[in-house]
Amino acid sequence: MTVEAQPPAPGEVQVAVSHVGLCGTDLHILHGAMDARVTFPAIIGHEMSGRVAAVGDGVSGWTIGAPVTVMPLDWCSECPACDAGNQHICQNLDFIGIDSTGALQELWNVPARALVALPESLPLRDAALVEPVAVAVHDVRRSELAAGDRAVVVGGGPIGVLIATVARDIGAEVLLIEVDASRRAAAEALGFRTLDPLAADQVATVEAWTSGAGADVVFEVSGSAAAVLGTTALAKVRGTIVVVAIHPDPRPIDLKQVFWRELRLLGARVYQRTDFERAVELLDGGVIPADALITDIAALEDIQDAFAKLGSGAMKVLVDVAAEGAPA
Amino acid sequence: MTVEAQPPAPGEVQVAVSHVGLCGTDLHILHGAMDARVTFPAIIGHEMSGRVAAVGDGVSGWTIGAPVTVMPLDWCSECPACDAGNQHICQNLDFIGIDSTGALQELWNVPARALVALPESLPLRDAALVEPVAVAVHDVRRSELAAGDRAVVVGGGPIGVLIATVARDIGAEVLLIEVDASRRAAAEALGFRTLDPLAADQVATVEAWTSGAGADVVFEVSGSAAAVLGTTALAKVRGTIVVVAIHPDPRPIDLKQVFWRELRLLGARVYQRTDFERAVELLDGGVIPADALITDIAALEDIQDAFAKLGSGAMKVLVDVAAEGAPA
Repeated sequence: MTVEAQPPAPGEVQVAVSHVGLCGTDLHILHGAMDARVTFPAIIGHEMSGRVAAVGDGVSGWTIGAPVTVMPLDWCSECPACDAGNQHICQNLDFIGIDSTGALQELWNVPARALVALPESLPLRDAALVEPVAVAVHDVRRSELAAGDRAVVVGGGPIGVLIATVARDIGAEVLLIEVDASRRAAAEALGFRTLDPLAADQVATVEAWTSGAGADVVFEVSGSAAAVLGTTALAKVRGTIVVVAIHPDPRPIDLKQVFWRELRLLGARVYQRTDFERAVELLDGGVIPADALITDIAALEDIQDAFAKLGSGAMKVLVDVAAEGAPA
Repeated sequence: MTVEAQPPAPGEVQVAVSHVGLCGTDLHILHGAMDARVTFPAIIGHEMSGRVAAVGDGVSGWTIGAPVTVMPLDWCSECPACDAGNQHICQNLDFIGIDSTGALQELWNVPARALVALPESLPLRDAALVEPVAVAVHDVRRSELAAGDRAVVVGGGPIGVLIATVARDIGAEVLLIEVDASRRAAAEALGFRTLDPLAADQVATVEAWTSGAGADVVFEVSGSAAAVLGTTALAKVRGTIVVVAIHPDPRPIDLKQVFWRELRLLGARVYQRTDFERAVELLDGGVIPADALITDIAALEDIQDAFAKLGSGAMKVLVDVAAEGAPA
């Protein structure tokens, strides 16, 4: 699909897109699971990096050529959630790239307030990971995990590995639970302790690992009903379970255990600007294993292939939008 | 059953029991649902008032005749939960009156540290409500409900009405959801706004009541699976759901909504000493509608009758243990 590039409207900035990461949500959109939110034809993509190409009226502080990423949230500023300071989960949130036009194009116009500056030292390829890293930073921050704590991450996909990485960076010990052997091997190569829940007794393992206390925090990143049901037996008294994965259907939860141990179950969604800025720092500082996470890079015209790879279990697939000579 | 009274052991105090409240847990024990924890014959009862009758060796600070109640928790002081300051949900907790001998006897020996002083101004009849009031105080405190907040209480039994009362006392507005018409009428007589979830759209009602925001806190006190599933649609963005009721089986929870609104679901169990002390103040200050809550008082020899009344929906049934001439 070819679309004529439009100049940025007042308040907008035009970004020359460099790299775009594909995520599970994009795959769901492609498969039609999100037709209620996405009207076809659509330009999707919300994990990206690029450079400022043009600046609309009324926008200041951005120089042509400056490296940037986009925090793809546009809030209403008027609903009770915005009033309470929770703009990132605004009741009328426009998630740019899902609810409105996304980054899989050479020139992308976005609200100036969505831009986040990047250091020149960070390769634009790696900067396409800022958005998923910000998810992990937000999840860990919301959990109140602290140095010395023990965290269980259930699910070893890209977000699970990023949560494990961010948790380890703040000084927590991490156990990653994952059914898939190749994902376990990838996590082990990054230095993580892993467990196959089909081969080992995860409750006994966590109990032994935590000297009988249970984990301080359990991150549910798998999306599996069985995994959710198991989380309450892994958390310590007054421990925290963070719901990161999207569960389309209601899931059985052991509320007797929630009551008995006074557990805390928290939803965590997207990020706030502080999470984006921290994600940039973590990538620029080499904390995030970008080389290991980026398993494939495709040109924009090969995007069907890229989605096929994503669907067959690749970790992170990037689209190199600028490869064909777009402004860089 | 007659048991020979024993003098208090070192570290114990003997209490001449005045009144004992019966609660749902006692009924579960009677019906055999808790045989794994309770060995018959057993003396149960954990909501009570009385006076100090004798003091064991090594105990100081208690005078014969002093009015007291008992916080029926005995913790191990050695497990990770105790180490972290959560003795009230100790991993080896002895709940006195369930796991060990309870108050339904004339003379009851308890660890001195379980005693809580009562003011002479508080009738011993009303003081038998301290324990369930402390549950409500703990639940509200754990929820972090604040003055001006809007709270939904799902379930209008004794604990639900007490939570509503404590929430109102701190300046919150309360909506009580209850399917039973007589319980709704009782709550309305105490000045509470009520809703029949079978007759009205609870989501639309709460949305209108909160100007589109949703409730700050939802207390799940019903024990019903349908009610649990409904709670996530009643809470505001970043709102709190407190699991007060005991759900023996895992319950479906709408985790998509937990994620979408970044909800917080908290288990709340028993109480800490500060809750007991606040409960005494609330009863002594006339905040708790003791007359309305205490629907029946039975003598100890009529306890089967008392349990029958409890089983048929009475609010609070007390046993007047001292009625037959026990020391008072």
